[in-house]
Amino acid sequence: MRQSKLFTKTVKEISSDIKMISHKYLYQAGFIRESTAGRYYFLPLGIRVRDRVIKIIEEEMNKAGALQIITPVLHPLELWKETSRTESAGFELMTIKDRNGSSFALGGTAEEMMVDLVRKYNMSYKDLPFNIYQFSQKFRDEMRVRGGLLRVREFLMKDAYSFHADEEDFKIEYEKMWHTYTKIFERMGLKTVVVEADNGYIGGEYSHEFVVECDSGESRFLISEDGTYAAHEDVAKFKKINKNIDEEEKDLQEVEAKRGNSMEDGVEYHHLPLWQQIKDVLFVDDKGKYILAIIRGDLDVNEIKLKHLSEANELRMATEDEVRAIGSEPGFISPVNIDKKVFIVADDSLRTIKNAYGGANKKYGDLLNINIGRDFTPHKEGDIVMAQDGFESENGSVLKEGRGIEVGNIFQLGEHYSSRMKANFTDKDGKEKPYYMGCYGIGVDRTLATIVEKFYDDKGIIWPETVAPYQIHLISLCKDEEGIKKADELYNKLISEGKEVLYDDRDLRAGEKFADSDLIGIPTRYIVSPKTLEQGSVEVKDRKSGEVKMEKIV
Amino acid sequence: MRQSKLFTKTVKEISSDIKMISHKYLYQAGFIRESTAGRYYFLPLGIRVRDRVIKIIEEEMNKAGALQIITPVLHPLELWKETSRTESAGFELMTIKDRNGSSFALGGTAEEMMVDLVRKYNMSYKDLPFNIYQFSQKFRDEMRVRGGLLRVREFLMKDAYSFHADEEDFKIEYEKMWHTYTKIFERMGLKTVVVEADNGYIGGEYSHEFVVECDSGESRFLISEDGTYAAHEDVAKFKKINKNIDEEEKDLQEVEAKRGNSMEDGVEYHHLPLWQQIKDVLFVDDKGKYILAIIRGDLDVNEIKLKHLSEANELRMATEDEVRAIGSEPGFISPVNIDKKVFIVADDSLRTIKNAYGGANKKYGDLLNINIGRDFTPHKEGDIVMAQDGFESENGSVLKEGRGIEVGNIFQLGEHYSSRMKANFTDKDGKEKPYYMGCYGIGVDRTLATIVEKFYDDKGIIWPETVAPYQIHLISLCKDEEGIKKADELYNKLISEGKEVLYDDRDLRAGEKFADSDLIGIPTRYIVSPKTLEQGSVEVKDRKSGEVKMEKIV
Repeated sequence: MRQSKLFTKTVKEISSDIKMISHKYLYQAGFIRESTAGRYYFLPLGIRVRDRVIKIIEEEMNKAGALQIITPVLHPLELWKETSRTESAGFELMTIKDRNGSSFALGGTAEEMMVDLVRKYNMSYKDLPFNIYQFSQKFRDEMRVRGGLLRVREFLMKDAYSFHADEEDFKIEYEKMWHTYTKIFERMGLKTVVVEADNGYIGGEYSHEFVVECDSGESRFLISEDGTYAAHEDVAKFKKINKNIDEEEKDLQEVEAKRGNSMEDGVEYHHLPLWQQIKDVLFVDDKGKYILAIIRGDLDVNEIKLKHLSEANELRMATEDEVRAIGSEPGFISPVNIDKKVFIVADDSLRTIKNAYGGANKKYGDLLNINIGRDFTPHKEGDIVMAQDGFESENGSVLKEGRGIEVGNIFQLGEHYSSRMKANFTDKDGKEKPYYMGCYGIGVDRTLATIVEKFYDDKGIIWPETVAPYQIHLISLCKDEEGIKKADELYNKLISEGKEVLYDDRDLRAGEKFADSDLIGIPTRYIVSPKTLEQGSVEVKDRKSGEVKMEKIV
Repeated sequence: MRQSKLFTKTVKEISSDIKMISHKYLYQAGFIRESTAGRYYFLPLGIRVRDRVIKIIEEEMNKAGALQIITPVLHPLELWKETSRTESAGFELMTIKDRNGSSFALGGTAEEMMVDLVRKYNMSYKDLPFNIYQFSQKFRDEMRVRGGLLRVREFLMKDAYSFHADEEDFKIEYEKMWHTYTKIFERMGLKTVVVEADNGYIGGEYSHEFVVECDSGESRFLISEDGTYAAHEDVAKFKKINKNIDEEEKDLQEVEAKRGNSMEDGVEYHHLPLWQQIKDVLFVDDKGKYILAIIRGDLDVNEIKLKHLSEANELRMATEDEVRAIGSEPGFISPVNIDKKVFIVADDSLRTIKNAYGGANKKYGDLLNINIGRDFTPHKEGDIVMAQDGFESENGSVLKEGRGIEVGNIFQLGEHYSSRMKANFTDKDGKEKPYYMGCYGIGVDRTLATIVEKFYDDKGIIWPETVAPYQIHLISLCKDEEGIKKADELYNKLISEGKEVLYDDRDLRAGEKFADSDLIGIPTRYIVSPKTLEQGSVEVKDRKSGEVKMEKIV
């Protein structure tokens, strides 16, 4: 490709809104350009890298026996109603009506579409298992977007769906996909941490996230020092250490407490440890139900865990007015004698303390010696804690916090979709049974951006060979006719050898050409100039190491 | 690919709604499956053919110097408003709002998106010309769909857009794309007729359609016997032969006419030739305006031509009540003394006759000796005739009717979009000028279906080599262990030689395997059976010719 003919050019100025490295460089070097917030054009250089990423995924999926198909972009909304995902996917789901009055979802994922396709055929156990996948544009009506390709409203996804006769067979595929994913990311130069994760609105019972460690990532996870356990913060398990559990239960006592509203104010006022205080956080769910989360004072609530335990689709913090509306007081909320319409969800850490203290549902009123089970009974009890660095894992190792970008997921779905959608196969015994399913996703655009987040320097991108837009960036510094002819010849020679070459044939200063070249980040640079031509050579420079050597042309 | 692992299977029963050959075979053989009317899944076999079609288009477009990019699926609606296409694209345009209240169009084509991208950059004449293209899903909210992939609501399109400094430079690209398209279709085995066509809601002044001749096609065109002229019926030009033009104009005369409402009734009643009668057709446009189309009695109105001449976005026939509401009478409409609010559009064929006859805007009243210009004055005059087989072309050759499937289009856009969207480049003289543009489309899915419409027999599809899902269909009739082993070995050998093979390893009767194989239509069939193995051979059968020969395996 002659760079003089390349649409588009590099960009020098960037807006101060651009914070992420991948956003900055992909935009400046001319790989992508924003249409509206969270929706991007891929330009010729971007398409080339994306094609390479797609190719690697395709090759490994095919090697694993998966079969490529494609579904329509518009999914009949009635399919999403069969699985109630019109509710659980919530605001992120975009819907549209055609002029015949049919409603459609702009798919965020395609479980319903795949199950609907499969149930059109009469399958028997002999046809199982199979894994079908597609590359298709996905839509998420995100409230806010993040710089560049990392959190967008429209993106290309590889989504795969496997169908099995039973759990045992599914587990084989799950492991195969685990290895396939590891391989896929490795081929792009990405090392992944695989962490247990939340299934979210996808449904099913368990899943794993593939995370590329990176400070700018949004996925926070905990990993045990002995390496045997890794989990996303939304599902991370750990030991809850007993505190004063052997203490005798004392009588509940109401006291005046002219204190401020914070946890620290309580500690200071009562001269008691933070862990002995009860932290009360009032939420409202999507149906308007009040949910009171209570937890040991030294711990924080994880909203995803709380959502699951309280079976809510959406949660938001209650306002101060709402706290007063249920007859309580901000800063003094208590599960003891709270309004009956409030649904109390207690973290099991409250079983590790005795004689706790906290508010009394009135301004300047506190309770001492609160004991769970005796003074109040939660409607639900379980784990709603946000795990922290230093916590002890269940097998006694120390948990360390990690952070990164989620590039892929694998999900157990079980019969979640097949049973709701009545998608059955005929088993060996002649009986109809719902398929046992799994699904497997990779965000193509996000993976591409992650590669940049990992491979760059202060001058630009440093593409790994396997995904680089071109192998060689041939830069001609020749201005005279003879030199240009020689450079053209070299370009044609490299092309005829099957090399992929971007040829900077533009009439620009050397400095500008080198700056563009560093920014674009092609692994190997060939410089041809009157000086190198004198020696019948080109100067070969490695983008990553900066090493330079001369190579004979003829 | 082992057929036992292939998702999905062939289907025997078909609904009586399936009329088109391509619909029937692509469905039965397992290439596609309908989701909702006009929206299709592509299954593994379908994806393979589609990929080959894409590859051919990609190769030829790249060879022609075009550059691949991709735009988001959701186009900001304000862009479509800049060019007023929200009106002209009409009901076919689907729109959607996100939860921040922004409106988007689901693109039918992407002129606005491309122009918006280009105007983000400061381009000079030195950066021109360039041609950018994409493969992307397109949406058309069609009222009715046609069998299979020929007229759908969602489809993959290759759309290209070229940007130039002036018309002269554009014309070079237009010709290049013409040749590129011819080549693309030829490589798939499709011979195309290139006909002048209407630009429709794409805009611009002229365009050409690439039509594959086929009785089931929806594109009707006229081609001159000498081969120098070919045009779609919506733009076809021809000579309008003078009739009694030398006759002297007689006095207008109103007569009683107790006749029926048809043109033939008029001929019979007055004993005058059909061509001397005036045909009046009353339409209503999308703004509620009455438009009276008048034409020589032996000719028919072409609605697209009428739409252009009357500058209407949409047209529908007036009802009988509407005819009466403007003070006229069905079957007796006349441009003479018609209500002033009616916009009269006359075909210029009315200049080829004198002393015409027709209705008098009252029941059982006719006028004789009507003369255009004297008795009525049309608001617009031009060509609104539907051309017919046998008409004389402008250079005196005979026009013949043809019919086929439109697989591609090339359009002159000129400054239609760039001027409305203020997309300028800096010209040599330092002045800002709007780009001169063209656009070029190929319907990928429709092209695939057209191949089937051209290449089939009563047993199934006969894929041309270049787009076949596999090169070889290896069918094993071996049931014993030894034979199966040999067949497996042959399969592995072919794969290792780089051949693309579908291997029918299923435990089925020979007849079923052959029927499936004929239906799927892979060009070459290898049959391995105990009998052929005895001779150390396979039976090689050509799907198209049916020729059979034996070939040594070892």
